[in-house]
Amino acid sequence: MSLKTPKGTTDLNPDDALVYEDLIDRTKNIFKLHGAVPIDTPVFELKSILLNKYGEDTKLIYDLKNNGGEECALRYDLTVPFSRYMSMNKLKKIKRYQIGKVYRRDQPSVVQGRWREFLQADFDIAGESLPMMADSELVCCMNRLLKTYNIGDFVIRVSDKRILYGIFEVCEIPNNLFATVSSSIDKLDKIAVNDINKELKLKGLTDKQIINLNIYIQKSGTVDVLDFLRENDVYKKCSEAVDDLCKLYEYCKIMKCSDHLIIDLSLARGLDYYTGMIIEGKYLNKNIGSVAGGGRYDNLIGSLENSSYTNTYNVPCAGFSIGLSRIFSCIQKPKVNTNVKVFISASGKLLLEERLKIQSILWEANISLETFYNKRNNPGEHKKYCVKHGIKYLIVVKEEQYNKGFVTVIEVNTNLENVIMIDNLPSHLQ
Amino acid sequence: MSLKTPKGTTDLNPDDALVYEDLIDRTKNIFKLHGAVPIDTPVFELKSILLNKYGEDTKLIYDLKNNGGEECALRYDLTVPFSRYMSMNKLKKIKRYQIGKVYRRDQPSVVQGRWREFLQADFDIAGESLPMMADSELVCCMNRLLKTYNIGDFVIRVSDKRILYGIFEVCEIPNNLFATVSSSIDKLDKIAVNDINKELKLKGLTDKQIINLNIYIQKSGTVDVLDFLRENDVYKKCSEAVDDLCKLYEYCKIMKCSDHLIIDLSLARGLDYYTGMIIEGKYLNKNIGSVAGGGRYDNLIGSLENSSYTNTYNVPCAGFSIGLSRIFSCIQKPKVNTNVKVFISASGKLLLEERLKIQSILWEANISLETFYNKRNNPGEHKKYCVKHGIKYLIVVKEEQYNKGFVTVIEVNTNLENVIMIDNLPSHLQ
Repeated sequence: MSLKTPKGTTDLNPDDALVYEDLIDRTKNIFKLHGAVPIDTPVFELKSILLNKYGEDTKLIYDLKNNGGEECALRYDLTVPFSRYMSMNKLKKIKRYQIGKVYRRDQPSVVQGRWREFLQADFDIAGESLPMMADSELVCCMNRLLKTYNIGDFVIRVSDKRILYGIFEVCEIPNNLFATVSSSIDKLDKIAVNDINKELKLKGLTDKQIINLNIYIQKSGTVDVLDFLRENDVYKKCSEAVDDLCKLYEYCKIMKCSDHLIIDLSLARGLDYYTGMIIEGKYLNKNIGSVAGGGRYDNLIGSLENSSYTNTYNVPCAGFSIGLSRIFSCIQKPKVNTNVKVFISASGKLLLEERLKIQSILWEANISLETFYNKRNNPGEHKKYCVKHGIKYLIVVKEEQYNKGFVTVIEVNTNLENVIMIDNLPSHLQ
Repeated sequence: MSLKTPKGTTDLNPDDALVYEDLIDRTKNIFKLHGAVPIDTPVFELKSILLNKYGEDTKLIYDLKNNGGEECALRYDLTVPFSRYMSMNKLKKIKRYQIGKVYRRDQPSVVQGRWREFLQADFDIAGESLPMMADSELVCCMNRLLKTYNIGDFVIRVSDKRILYGIFEVCEIPNNLFATVSSSIDKLDKIAVNDINKELKLKGLTDKQIINLNIYIQKSGTVDVLDFLRENDVYKKCSEAVDDLCKLYEYCKIMKCSDHLIIDLSLARGLDYYTGMIIEGKYLNKNIGSVAGGGRYDNLIGSLENSSYTNTYNVPCAGFSIGLSRIFSCIQKPKVNTNVKVFISASGKLLLEERLKIQSILWEANISLETFYNKRNNPGEHKKYCVKHGIKYLIVVKEEQYNKGFVTVIEVNTNLENVIMIDNLPSHLQ
């Protein structure tokens, strides 16, 4: 029998799983700080709900076998299930987070932390919002997260789908090429501009269109980019979006989260459903691409609507995902990582019942511990185990001492040895 | 488009998701108290690994469509993936927990908390162990969990597969019927004994065999059952198992977890892989069947072994699962359940930038908050929102006050109103 995990998936050993637990807790705490509440959705959805959402990537969806029931597929992200949840319950407003695994039948890359099963943490603000109020909170929240993970310097790049399309119009790129040109530009972060230009030519753009386009998509900065846009023909096409982006920058300055913010006109975001502000976060010293991404998607929830209901239901929405599997791949792993405070050893005899008794006392006092189940009552070995796993105290049970109501407690770091009355163990070990 | 979750699956709304988060935390803390470490495995496994593990229930496994790759299926439990993990890494010893969703294409029952996708929490002790040292810790840990959930009185029923087979031998039931007779007896908890007997007759047992069997499987108690077994013919067939069960009871008494313990000879546990002690926990006042179950499975890990490796690898193992979805279905839900401490309202104007500024100050001080994004600056409405969601403080930003460096803070419960200097907000709201 082939003993492995399916292609592109992996186990987490205890050290890694503890790092993940910590990563999830820290992420969750920041979402909660921002007043978000959790929801959960199934790992698989009706296939019909996932169709026409992911452009060319629809082919990466994992389908379930249909045994005479519904056509189902593993979720590709958490955004579409969230939108389905909103629409199904006809909710008007929520700030929610969701942390869960998503599935993409992509080419895996272990080095880059790119898996077929990976963990995402999503933060979305659904409901009516004055321009950039919700959007700027996304920047603020993403900024706080990327700082918290303590991986190194990072940038948060923002732009707006409306500006991108405004640029396309000014460059006289035909409407029907918008999507495919977007997805080429989206790769500018990974692929050299010359190669992108070759690709654009293959996709049918003229040299003039490409030259014009290059003027825009190489602009990246802060107020200078906003000034450039304001004085450019693009402003006529999408003045509202440009003004919004200015406002976003202002709001971020007020909330002290503009230090890492870059307005980057090459930002494109591949997915079909974005309608306004788009955002991506990445660490500068790590070669793993973006670790967070999202944007505004004002029509997705409405587009899912059950047509038997009124036609007017829609909820504007903006949010982002953090790729926790990617964050994990570049996070500093702690050297020892244990939950356990005490190891109970025995000297001379095995002293099973005596150890069970002490176990029971310490558990009642909420002190985490391990003992040994086999016949090897070797306090020396157990001491080494404690050192290796960062366990603070080694208790050695000795028959004679025990019968008088005492055990030996060794503080592993200092080798300090004390004989402690069993009744006093909980307070001694707290 | 059909806006629903697939059959037998469900979403969690924020109230429920927060209850689940709490349930998971409490469960995890008890596992950690017992010195367990987490692992994680993929949601789907190679199909070959899941075959021949679940008896008749193999048909309930969800398969993935195979697009020219491997045959995969959603995990049916966490025990087999854990065993695969052990065997793949040739580990000899671990005490691990894992909390994750599992998948069974069963007939769902919302009332009983029986879903096709449901959350399990597993605790397993793998590695060499003196008789009943690990097994008694399972009782101790399950006892602590069932107490923690605070749902009501409960029992933990234990028996041993070896004793069950000893009983079958004494009743002269042929070997080839052991599995199917086991699965009938397993239902004694839900189905009247007369109906079980009818089923046994249909399965080919004689009246005499059934009458004999009934003498045993209706025995349930504590020391009295052990005494009965010791004086009975069964003892000759499986003296070691009976002695082990006595020892288990002794150890549990030492660890003060014998109060809810029942030795119940009708306990059978359906799955193929149990080899020794078996265990089930249930609440007495709830009509939802067992909420926890497990046992010793000393051969499963070895049986998965890759035959290209040495043939001697095996690890004895015992553990149990808690059905957290079932626990959830009968847990007391808190009335208000919020993470949020502060709501920032505004009076007169919208005061967007002023609110962003205050937001930023409070977030820096790690105070969770919400504000409003729309045009409805109605402190009265916002107060009602705070009451409904258990938010402690309502800040009302007023232009004139703000310009002097102050805001109004209302303590929602008491209606106590204070004008607070903005710089002092963090300390006032801590």
